[in-house]
Amino acid sequence: MISLAEAEALDDADPLRAQRARFRLPEGVIYLDGNSLGALPEAAVGIARDAVERQWGEDLIRSWNSNDWIGAPQRVGAKIATLIGAKPNEVVVADSTSVNLFKLVVAAARLAPDRPRIVTETGNFPTDLQIASGAAALLPGGSFEAVPTDEIEDAFDGRTGVIVLTHVHYKTARRHDMARLTALARERGIRLIWDLSHSAGAIELDLARDGVELAIGCGYKYLNGGPGAPAFLHVAEHLHGTLLSPLTGWMGHAAPFDFADAYEPAPGIRRFLCGTPPVLGLLTLEAGVDEFMAADRAEIWAKSVRLFDLFAMLAADRLPDMECVTPADSRARGSHISFAHADAWPICQALIAKGVIGDFRAPDILRFGLTPLYLGYADVWRAVDILAGLIASGEWRDPRYAERRAVT
Amino acid sequence: MISLAEAEALDDADPLRAQRARFRLPEGVIYLDGNSLGALPEAAVGIARDAVERQWGEDLIRSWNSNDWIGAPQRVGAKIATLIGAKPNEVVVADSTSVNLFKLVVAAARLAPDRPRIVTETGNFPTDLQIASGAAALLPGGSFEAVPTDEIEDAFDGRTGVIVLTHVHYKTARRHDMARLTALARERGIRLIWDLSHSAGAIELDLARDGVELAIGCGYKYLNGGPGAPAFLHVAEHLHGTLLSPLTGWMGHAAPFDFADAYEPAPGIRRFLCGTPPVLGLLTLEAGVDEFMAADRAEIWAKSVRLFDLFAMLAADRLPDMECVTPADSRARGSHISFAHADAWPICQALIAKGVIGDFRAPDILRFGLTPLYLGYADVWRAVDILAGLIASGEWRDPRYAERRAVT
Repeated sequence: MISLAEAEALDDADPLRAQRARFRLPEGVIYLDGNSLGALPEAAVGIARDAVERQWGEDLIRSWNSNDWIGAPQRVGAKIATLIGAKPNEVVVADSTSVNLFKLVVAAARLAPDRPRIVTETGNFPTDLQIASGAAALLPGGSFEAVPTDEIEDAFDGRTGVIVLTHVHYKTARRHDMARLTALARERGIRLIWDLSHSAGAIELDLARDGVELAIGCGYKYLNGGPGAPAFLHVAEHLHGTLLSPLTGWMGHAAPFDFADAYEPAPGIRRFLCGTPPVLGLLTLEAGVDEFMAADRAEIWAKSVRLFDLFAMLAADRLPDMECVTPADSRARGSHISFAHADAWPICQALIAKGVIGDFRAPDILRFGLTPLYLGYADVWRAVDILAGLIASGEWRDPRYAERRAVT
Repeated sequence: MISLAEAEALDDADPLRAQRARFRLPEGVIYLDGNSLGALPEAAVGIARDAVERQWGEDLIRSWNSNDWIGAPQRVGAKIATLIGAKPNEVVVADSTSVNLFKLVVAAARLAPDRPRIVTETGNFPTDLQIASGAAALLPGGSFEAVPTDEIEDAFDGRTGVIVLTHVHYKTARRHDMARLTALARERGIRLIWDLSHSAGAIELDLARDGVELAIGCGYKYLNGGPGAPAFLHVAEHLHGTLLSPLTGWMGHAAPFDFADAYEPAPGIRRFLCGTPPVLGLLTLEAGVDEFMAADRAEIWAKSVRLFDLFAMLAADRLPDMECVTPADSRARGSHISFAHADAWPICQALIAKGVIGDFRAPDILRFGLTPLYLGYADVWRAVDILAGLIASGEWRDPRYAERRAVT
């Protein structure tokens, strides 16, 4: 079995080792929750100060032009496009993942009124299920169905107009076959919307290669955009002329500053904007995304695989009671590793108290995010070591770890 | 006519004079655009640094509990409620004004399927018109109509289910009679949604007294929340049980962290949340709103009236070519003053170049926001003096001031 010294040697040889210093991480913490809230890029500190103190405080309203606040949704969108294999004009940053999903579900469903069924899989991230269900209720004759994942392909039928799938599952990290399912959907005349919240910045994506038409994703997880950073939305160029957002707000208008009464959608991806862009979150998101622009992305994806394999190997040896629920095949998973355990909640809390921050997902999952930009092999080694020690000691049985909190 | 010395004496005697030091304003600038982007509260500087550097950087994901990120939408909403005369549990901060309007229009319209017409006034702020129109297109049999303001009461009829009115007009500052129109709407079985974007933090509001059931408003104007700060949404308590958001995202769920498939709306105002809250903007908004909590609010509203009256009096004397389009009666207006002039655009640009920042609203309006928290009487005096000098000199005719920018 690999030793701590060997893990440290892997860190020394890591071509991404310089990236870690580009993030602020608290002393004494091993942060395995970057899949829920990405760590703070050092650059974001200065950018946030500048955004507040100079851009807002000094330039004030002039910043919409002088600091290009108005262009930020498309500028940051174009950078995210690079990261997910889309064209720069196919991605925009706006609103939340939930709101963006609503826009795309309604927009896509309206293109196929003769196929009023919207489908997703049971156990998908709640907002995907709930937004899709709410959108279906707004559509004439609309129906919504959540089907088990292993039956999802049966739902690619003539009644279905829109399917929403999360590429990498938030609990298990199980990855769908994007290319195959996208091809199947297109062949059957279905619009497939991919939620990339646990994929973008985590694994290699090539939306153009895989023929993806519609996608949304989160800004504050692997993209390191900061708490509640806005989300992104992708629409393939060939749909720009036909797809219409149901949220016809002024920022998606062809000429917002003409202050016209009637809505006229902007010609390109900008029509998917709605209200005034959330500038502070957009600029910290840009700082987070820039970390990917600066690094060797092939190395990032490769390191994600290696961090996982190390975690899985150590866990198999030292955590015999934890059942790994994430697929072993690197092509079938994302960049987090999850374990089922009946006592996942108190174990997770006790682990956090020891400085190893992962998270719990109801009812019984202990989840660890593996973020190659700022996580090292020795971090993984130490995390498993601390977890193994914790379980051996039974310390997690202390009643204080059983107490629930508002956010899990 | 009042002299500069007399205006300065008014500032010396101003009970709000200490508030000004609580805002950062650049040297050499008279900022008359706080109705478009409020100035930076000094406190927001520290709060933004803390939010980024400690809460995000050090506490990381734990901040959802330890720094009560999860409670921020309701906590900041309760403060805004104080400011607009609503109950603390009737206001929540979320999304943009546009998205919040969409939620309320659809929610309200669904309560009255037999009255499928949605009405607003022509010349309303574009997003109000456009969102309402987009929402109507989603509703079974829904229709949308924009009627001229002076005919609006004719639309309070049995076909109309929902009316959207902006309390204070973004261009002219004309104020609707909230109490009378709200009573009329309720008498006729219509849900009236008030857009308070140019009222909240600008003039006295008492939503409870006026019987208001539904309202939305902007966080980055008079509330000083920072660029693109999230917006607020108000629903009277008696509607909490019946009104349902069409944006059924996980943060509006009764128990988001149970990760259930099916949507179950939260029991109170929280059901109008959708995605993950935009934490940075929420916290800077809280800093902005706290400035109102700390000040004598009756003085704020009284000073708004006096700043306007001073501006109007000086303009009548010194700006004979500028036509004031804002009502003279303080009960019939908001807290900005607007003038029509065929050359409003170049005059506005030349004025900005001289350090007096107002804004232009197409096609011919020059608009000045009067924000009592950080604006003084001498500021108003100097602004009119500089504008009068500019017009007398003809300097604004320089071709460089004719050039258009992305954002006006």
